[in-house]
Amino acid sequence: MVPDSFKGTLSSTQVCEIIGGKIKEHFPDCQVVSIPVADGGEGSVDCFLAAVGGEKVRAFVKNPYFEDMESFYGIIDNGNTAVIEMAACAGLPLAEGRRDPGRTTTFGVGQLILDAASRGVKRIIIGLGGSCTNDGGCGAAAAAGVKFRNARGEEFVPVGGTLHNIAEIDISGKADILAGIEIITMCDIDNPMYGPAGAAHVFGPQKGADPEMVAALDEGIRHLSEMIKTSLNMDLSEIPGTGAAGAMGAGMMAFFDSRLQMGIDTVLDAVNFSSVASGADVVFTGEGRIDNQSLRGKVVTGVAKRARKLCIPVIVIAGGADYGMEEAYELGVTAVFTVNRLPEAFETSRRKSKENLEFAADNIMRLIKCIGG
Amino acid sequence: MVPDSFKGTLSSTQVCEIIGGKIKEHFPDCQVVSIPVADGGEGSVDCFLAAVGGEKVRAFVKNPYFEDMESFYGIIDNGNTAVIEMAACAGLPLAEGRRDPGRTTTFGVGQLILDAASRGVKRIIIGLGGSCTNDGGCGAAAAAGVKFRNARGEEFVPVGGTLHNIAEIDISGKADILAGIEIITMCDIDNPMYGPAGAAHVFGPQKGADPEMVAALDEGIRHLSEMIKTSLNMDLSEIPGTGAAGAMGAGMMAFFDSRLQMGIDTVLDAVNFSSVASGADVVFTGEGRIDNQSLRGKVVTGVAKRARKLCIPVIVIAGGADYGMEEAYELGVTAVFTVNRLPEAFETSRRKSKENLEFAADNIMRLIKCIGG
Repeated sequence: MVPDSFKGTLSSTQVCEIIGGKIKEHFPDCQVVSIPVADGGEGSVDCFLAAVGGEKVRAFVKNPYFEDMESFYGIIDNGNTAVIEMAACAGLPLAEGRRDPGRTTTFGVGQLILDAASRGVKRIIIGLGGSCTNDGGCGAAAAAGVKFRNARGEEFVPVGGTLHNIAEIDISGKADILAGIEIITMCDIDNPMYGPAGAAHVFGPQKGADPEMVAALDEGIRHLSEMIKTSLNMDLSEIPGTGAAGAMGAGMMAFFDSRLQMGIDTVLDAVNFSSVASGADVVFTGEGRIDNQSLRGKVVTGVAKRARKLCIPVIVIAGGADYGMEEAYELGVTAVFTVNRLPEAFETSRRKSKENLEFAADNIMRLIKCIGG
Repeated sequence: MVPDSFKGTLSSTQVCEIIGGKIKEHFPDCQVVSIPVADGGEGSVDCFLAAVGGEKVRAFVKNPYFEDMESFYGIIDNGNTAVIEMAACAGLPLAEGRRDPGRTTTFGVGQLILDAASRGVKRIIIGLGGSCTNDGGCGAAAAAGVKFRNARGEEFVPVGGTLHNIAEIDISGKADILAGIEIITMCDIDNPMYGPAGAAHVFGPQKGADPEMVAALDEGIRHLSEMIKTSLNMDLSEIPGTGAAGAMGAGMMAFFDSRLQMGIDTVLDAVNFSSVASGADVVFTGEGRIDNQSLRGKVVTGVAKRARKLCIPVIVIAGGADYGMEEAYELGVTAVFTVNRLPEAFETSRRKSKENLEFAADNIMRLIKCIGG
């Protein structure tokens, strides 16, 4: 069972509990493996820990305003993999009451990365999403030893509002401990670094930027992009996803040699899906709404593709199934069921999500038990 | 496949076509038996003919205003059973532009009954519903030879507005041809003859009666009830369903020795369901909305009860599944699926009923093929 969350109503962990409960009710002897899918944002570490077990590690790092805070990350895979959600020290709730993407930093994220590295992990997964920052990951890079200098040669830690001051990027001082560690960045969005679809324009306003600040932040990211090109010889400006989380996507690529990867693929790799699912009778997945968008590399598609290779039926339970999602069947989906017991608008039905999902799951199990049993 | 109509969106014949199409698409070799369920109203004869085949017979009778018209009924069951829908000569559309339940008659219905009887049928099924009359079936009775006399001993054919003039009912002249013919009246409603829940108060307004006329019609039916009690020694006043179709339910019982029976049971008997369904892999049924009401003797329940005796799974496809319909499983329902692809209010989704039903049926077939195949 590998569901996404039902956006706005149920977390993927809740979806797992509900469907899993119905499986156990109708098939008491069935072995159920629950893999709630993390999207990289808040709660992602807990999702990984729920899926495969592991340890939640505490660490003292800087918050978005360079103040000390206690944060956390997860250690899974027998200590070989760390899972970090950037929201744990650079999340929007941490800036509540003083949102300002011109001043906030991802410095703590770099500290979490170093902390995890010091534990000897071979791989670090970073979840983007829910950030209050627009620093292009420069804060995290600075924490890891990357040096940013202005035109006067002075070292500083760039934030959204000071990115334009970067005159030199020096990665020679990056912590040796990171060498040889594979760093994977979970990223499900396509936005480029800057421009109309870039980090500042699309996500700046929700982080507290007014139109004037958005324009300035966009300029800063554009300048950072130029500096990365000239100093590191990398042109990231057009790469989809580099604009994620205040251009943290770009920073992860430029400063941490990370690759951006779909969340679902990251999760399925981390939980060793093909091995876990091998021999399963059926795989359940689902999401709030299945549509053309969700077929482009989202949870349902990711699960279906891998399950198809194992010849395992994939049943999708969704809050809605948009017209034009029929391609899903070609990708490996066996059947799609929606949860709407009654013809009701989302404003009404959203409050009944739990009962509605229970009802749909219950009837699917009843049918399977009767037809397949 | 034995679906009810989806009220307000799809006829039971359309539902059969859609589900049947999807069965054939996924199981080309499957034998599909379609039994669209008639509710007794307009279209019921066609439903029976579609379900079991037969002949549509034309007959010239009186319309609601005692004018000549061409009407029809069905002959099924190798000529042994006739199916009549009263709407075919006493239906609301026939009074369009001049609705007046004080003046309209069911005389034609009695003529259809005689016409069918003259063909040597052993059984006549009468569907109530969609009528423009409120004559307590006196018109039909008069056509069949029952005599109504006023206080001056004058014979007349009572209509809604003259029921109060009945002083004597004489059934001695009833056509001999009716003797020995079983007459079954399809009736799915519970209304008594008169009173607040009676024929005039509940259905009078939609037939064109204003409050004053409703009161007068109700008085007329009440008087008819008294006359039936004194003349025929039958107390029908409290029997559920006698108020159906302008108290035609009462008239069928009093003047034609008919029994009132749920439509679904009538249909399942007529098509010899237990024999037809024997050996089926699955029975599909459905209706617009499954709720507590629909469990009280409606289509889904009727089908489920009989299928359960044959140990055949029953899959319900519904436009909506109300909270509290879980008793359905105890009655023999295997699983319930709703058609709402998206969380949309009925005003929106009703226009998509066909696509939505196709989608639900399609995915159920996909699942059955995968799990059971």
